[in-house]
Amino acid sequence: MPAGESQLIERYFRGLGAERADTVLGIGDDAALLRVPAECELALTTDALIEGVHFLPGAPPRALGHRALAVNLSDIAAMGATPAWALLSLNLPAADDGWLHEFAAGFGALARRHRVALVGGNLSRGPLSITVQLAGLVPAGQALRRAGARAGDDLYLSGSVGDAAAGLALLRAAAATPATAAGTTADAGMATAATGSATAADAAWLRQRFEYPTPRVALGEALRGVASACIDVSDGVYIDVTRLLAASGCAATLEIERLPLSTALRHALGADAAGVALSGGEDYELCFCVAPARAGELAAIAEHTGQALTRIGALHAGGALTLTSGGKVMQFSATRFDHFGD
Amino acid sequence: MPAGESQLIERYFRGLGAERADTVLGIGDDAALLRVPAECELALTTDALIEGVHFLPGAPPRALGHRALAVNLSDIAAMGATPAWALLSLNLPAADDGWLHEFAAGFGALARRHRVALVGGNLSRGPLSITVQLAGLVPAGQALRRAGARAGDDLYLSGSVGDAAAGLALLRAAAATPATAAGTTADAGMATAATGSATAADAAWLRQRFEYPTPRVALGEALRGVASACIDVSDGVYIDVTRLLAASGCAATLEIERLPLSTALRHALGADAAGVALSGGEDYELCFCVAPARAGELAAIAEHTGQALTRIGALHAGGALTLTSGGKVMQFSATRFDHFGD
Repeated sequence: MPAGESQLIERYFRGLGAERADTVLGIGDDAALLRVPAECELALTTDALIEGVHFLPGAPPRALGHRALAVNLSDIAAMGATPAWALLSLNLPAADDGWLHEFAAGFGALARRHRVALVGGNLSRGPLSITVQLAGLVPAGQALRRAGARAGDDLYLSGSVGDAAAGLALLRAAAATPATAAGTTADAGMATAATGSATAADAAWLRQRFEYPTPRVALGEALRGVASACIDVSDGVYIDVTRLLAASGCAATLEIERLPLSTALRHALGADAAGVALSGGEDYELCFCVAPARAGELAAIAEHTGQALTRIGALHAGGALTLTSGGKVMQFSATRFDHFGD
Repeated sequence: MPAGESQLIERYFRGLGAERADTVLGIGDDAALLRVPAECELALTTDALIEGVHFLPGAPPRALGHRALAVNLSDIAAMGATPAWALLSLNLPAADDGWLHEFAAGFGALARRHRVALVGGNLSRGPLSITVQLAGLVPAGQALRRAGARAGDDLYLSGSVGDAAAGLALLRAAAATPATAAGTTADAGMATAATGSATAADAAWLRQRFEYPTPRVALGEALRGVASACIDVSDGVYIDVTRLLAASGCAATLEIERLPLSTALRHALGADAAGVALSGGEDYELCFCVAPARAGELAAIAEHTGQALTRIGALHAGGALTLTSGGKVMQFSATRFDHFGD
């Protein structure tokens, strides 16, 4: 006899994440009650993971708990805000204690790391999907936006890109051919062929980049007052840079050779790595613009946060994204990573 | 060729609901930015509607848009808070313009009525489910909670109860036997048989009570400082009163004859109406406690809000809910309206 919704919430979710003095009332009433400091604005976002759309059937619940929160943390990071409170809406086909335990462990560990308190939510029976809402705090008027970049600014990326798409391809290939070793083929609808030089460690690292993305929260906070615009790379560098440019009313030239590619991605994809880095989504790196005069401040941020930051291009007047390689303009057809796209 | 997620959000959801001066940044960035007044706490809730669980396949999208927001407004009302901002996470099997137009119309009309701005969300392809997150504002320290009721307080209900369960039964019966007239049978797993005396108008009204619930927002606000505890009736009077009592550490006696039953419900269910009123969920009325000395204030609230309020019992020491009829204690086995219940 499965426990009811209230008991499951009580068992797995009450008190999950950080304790916060500004949580007046958490799980257990009709709504949570929270205190927002007078000098702050509230940043509010929501994102969902749906089985078969955002993750493969049978995905490890610990990774799902991590990732469902991480994708929302990344949105809050892209605003330069500090995460604070989460709500969780979980649709589960059946009450499965082992699954819930693992999911809560993944969610809870990441929540504690970022001082996020889980303050409400609901559990329903239904096709597996996870919706998280996250509230953060940012000093009034200081949030980073997609708009605000100017011609002359440099364009930067944190970390490395393309890894998550390659990791997903490896997971898909392993799911399709469970008898063969994972890590030898990549199939993510990207028309890529693995070079075969990826080691088992490379493959494991790429899978981890998909399953356990690292939201760049400390970087986002540090970029307040330094970056002129910011977006998180959830749908791929090409699409997300295009969005930032549209919001800012600028054009940019992106030098493909400058894209930060991990060694594992180069091993796995060889010459195709840059294409996947441009089109692959789910990396949750930050893409942002900084005036050249502030490059010194940015270097200090990179050192302080321990975060690799790479200049990938520059903004100029106009309204398009131009890609160059070896100084020549390249054509690029973005594989749209858009659930209702063609 | 369906439009992408961004275009659909742009077309149907940007600017939906009320314009609010305290919305710093709405739909279109990585997160919304909102201003919370220093004297207020933020009330935050989320609730989901899943096809086949919370509504029948093929349910009218306008009703779903209304109801998805209404169930969250009801949670905010139960806290005595004033609703302000919503996020919407929509999983749709396919991009259907007609469906989205109707859904947005239902959501938008109710949002405008309550001055709620839709400030963010996401659209994904997946089995139909709708998750709304709602943020409200309440003067610090004045929110209504489930805890706080004391022995000696009177127990009240707004409006009438059981209607939504009967309305759902009528919808189910109509879906099961489309050739027969709706309104002649009731089937909601409640072991009830309709008396057959319900008119077509009765049946339509009951269906509307399920499809277009009216959250008691003005009442919740008015009850601040008057009610000692409050909960919204989402899972049925018996279960929700039991929750309020558990949170308050009290017992209560509820007089079954005092339950506010609509004429339509009496017509449809005859002698079974009271049982359905106790066990049926989805009415979204408020159940609250008031000290007898404040009955005059409550009468003024009823007059001011135009809201029928009915005393259904009283609280006393102990920890159980006792039902009486004609002064005799009745046994009642609550049909748990709990998605992971037995």
